Amino acid sequence: MEASKKEPLIITDKEQMRKWSRTMRSQGKSIGLVPTMGYLHQGHISLVNEALKLTNLTVVSIYVNPGQFAPSEDLSTYPSDFHGDISKLMSVPGGVDVVFHPHNLYDYENDTKRNKNDKGACKNLEGKGEVVSCLEESGMGHETWVRVEKLENGLCGKSRPVFFRGVATVVTKLFNIVEPDVAVFGKKDYQQWRIVQRMVRDLDFSIRIIGTEILRDNDGLAMSSRNVHLSAEERRKALSISRSLLGAKSSAENGHINCRELRDSVIQAVSEAGGRIDYAEIVDQESLQAVEEISSPVVFCIAAWFGKVRLIDNIEINL
Amino acid sequence: MEASKKEPLIITDKEQMRKWSRTMRSQGKSIGLVPTMGYLHQGHISLVNEALKLTNLTVVSIYVNPGQFAPSEDLSTYPSDFHGDISKLMSVPGGVDVVFHPHNLYDYENDTKRNKNDKGACKNLEGKGEVVSCLEESGMGHETWVRVEKLENGLCGKSRPVFFRGVATVVTKLFNIVEPDVAVFGKKDYQQWRIVQRMVRDLDFSIRIIGTEILRDNDGLAMSSRNVHLSAEERRKALSISRSLLGAKSSAENGHINCRELRDSVIQAVSEAGGRIDYAEIVDQESLQAVEEISSPVVFCIAAWFGKVRLIDNIEINL
Repeated sequence: MEASKKEPLIITDKEQMRKWSRTMRSQGKSIGLVPTMGYLHQGHISLVNEALKLTNLTVVSIYVNPGQFAPSEDLSTYPSDFHGDISKLMSVPGGVDVVFHPHNLYDYENDTKRNKNDKGACKNLEGKGEVVSCLEESGMGHETWVRVEKLENGLCGKSRPVFFRGVATVVTKLFNIVEPDVAVFGKKDYQQWRIVQRMVRDLDFSIRIIGTEILRDNDGLAMSSRNVHLSAEERRKALSISRSLLGAKSSAENGHINCRELRDSVIQAVSEAGGRIDYAEIVDQESLQAVEEISSPVVFCIAAWFGKVRLIDNIEINL
Repeated sequence: MEASKKEPLIITDKEQMRKWSRTMRSQGKSIGLVPTMGYLHQGHISLVNEALKLTNLTVVSIYVNPGQFAPSEDLSTYPSDFHGDISKLMSVPGGVDVVFHPHNLYDYENDTKRNKNDKGACKNLEGKGEVVSCLEESGMGHETWVRVEKLENGLCGKSRPVFFRGVATVVTKLFNIVEPDVAVFGKKDYQQWRIVQRMVRDLDFSIRIIGTEILRDNDGLAMSSRNVHLSAEERRKALSISRSLLGAKSSAENGHINCRELRDSVIQAVSEAGGRIDYAEIVDQESLQAVEEISSPVVFCIAAWFGKVRLIDNIEINL
């Protein structure tokens, strides 16, 4: 069967986006949102397919959010390919209705006192021990942040202290602009998914949060926009992540429930392949608190550098 | 003319509240929200009247929010009179449509792992140098907070470090539950009003925020639910606040624009009357940053204790 080739409406303006959503809702239509930073791959498409199943209309947002990058991180090199993204979305059977692609979500027209800079202007001025993202560095005058104070601390939160604050904040903004009924996130970003779920509960958003399973390439590597920066050699070595996670899961299912031993074997495998471990933790699936022995559903989360690329991956172990 | 005596619908359940709002909106009705902690006085009624002017339907929320009280503060003695509140609201010409009176906005049914306590359970367990409100002390499992990082720091934020975090968070919750078009706040809580405005801008809420002028009793005292705790003597002394603020405004309008001198005279007058100054600051009306000389619109904000009661007041000086 031929794919639909439905051309999405491209909306760049917040007010126009909200107006579209409210018009559709007034006609009784339900709306699904898939927030992305673009450079779409099959993992994103699986989120879109999930939204298509659950709601009448689907909005994909494409926005590289400066609020979740530290000045030392890879905002300026984050890959993008808007036209490629649109054609990928047009190939999805059923198609998406809107691509929301704002130029700058933090450009507040009334705030004329501040200097305004673009994404590229994130300078490396971190200091004073404060939590500062590229957004503050750009001097836009944005100062409201949503924080999920416990869940944001561990795992990726340790090495990326501005990350989840930025994610929770931009997701709040997108929720308030798009006003969806359902929003779909990938479980590849496991901690992010749990944080958004908790935020939605705690702030009483009337939005159902869906987490979809990790999509992997044939060799097992979890799909990520950042994989494009891996050399062939790095990519081959990075397979140690998914392989060792699978091994740990299998060991656990065979009764090896000591987390220290399971972690050690994964750390060893990834390190021997040349990966630099950021963290490798076995945590409760809801609280994300580390456990010593697996006696209830856990998730084994890992982050490791291969060359200049930081990769994350995880596997749920449901004992 | 006889007052309307319209009886408001009393809603205690979040889902029912949201359903009412969505039904009304689907009928093309606009909704105004007046968030209160109850024990209503004429100041609150002026907020209600403002909402009545601007929207088709008016919701008054009555909820004493544990998230904005520190364990050392007056949560347990905060005055309440729900039946009195309802009859006051029934006497407003035009009347209000809904009183949203939730028992506990932080009771998340799905979160069964935690202990659940009531408002009264705020124990004085502050410590470890962390910012902790009565909400955290009650162990409800709520962990998402909205912070307006610059505006929350000065004035009341200095002596009440959990206050604005709690206000911004509960207002976000109320906005997500009631989904109003307009929300009305009093300029008596000047910093709160500015914080909510900034939050709405930064998080892209589609809600118009209105600030209404301070209402004063005949003797000049700014109306506040906490005034009930003042003895007659304390109340008489507390008039030094409004009197000296008016004096400062008048001086400024006559060319005395040095803020140090203006502050000194107010601090002296209130102290001599027996008040214990928390702060007395002349700040820019938008940024709430202190100024040295008045050359643009400022607001003179003061907080002072009379006996066990902490009073706040302010006056705008538009030079």
